[in-house]
Amino acid sequence: MVEPLSQPRRDALAGLLPHWAPTPGRDAIRRELRFRDFSEAFGFMTRVALLAETQDHHPEWSNVWNRVEITLTTHDAGGLSERDIRMAQAIDALLG
Amino acid sequence: MVEPLSQPRRDALAGLLPHWAPTPGRDAIRRELRFRDFSEAFGFMTRVALLAETQDHHPEWSNVWNRVEITLTTHDAGGLSERDIRMAQAIDALLG
Repeated sequence: MVEPLSQPRRDALAGLLPHWAPTPGRDAIRRELRFRDFSEAFGFMTRVALLAETQDHHPEWSNVWNRVEITLTTHDAGGLSERDIRMAQAIDALLG
Repeated sequence: MVEPLSQPRRDALAGLLPHWAPTPGRDAIRRELRFRDFSEAFGFMTRVALLAETQDHHPEWSNVWNRVEITLTTHDAGGLSERDIRMAQAIDALLG
């Protein structure tokens, strides 16, 4: 098991991750992204895939041409954990 | 515009693409796949991405760890077209 996210960290979430929103009906966060085309979208996804393997923490995600939607949650915590914050920050860092 | 799939081809779809099922409520087909792990799933997705660029026909798809779900439809045809059959067959060929 992984420790669920503490209440103080939850309260700080909007400030820590301004580009991420709560996923309705789940203890998870999501971010939607748009790129110039599929090539750019999938190039980004490949970089996120490498991050996911490095951090051993994998997104739930979907892609339709230039759009990518990413949901982060931690199954072993039954919801959000520090792993999601770390991954979200790493994804944000890719986007500059 | 792209020509919508003809009725004879629709009638033959189950035989042509036995691994694909109609998407409920849409004129589209879908296939769900399971791999050993994320690495294998994303490796497969990368091969499909290369196909998609080659054929200039892109899937709607999602991934959760070792699972990949692919939906094919042709926006320019308002539903299924020959492009979807060609892409589905190319994806099936990757899976041997």
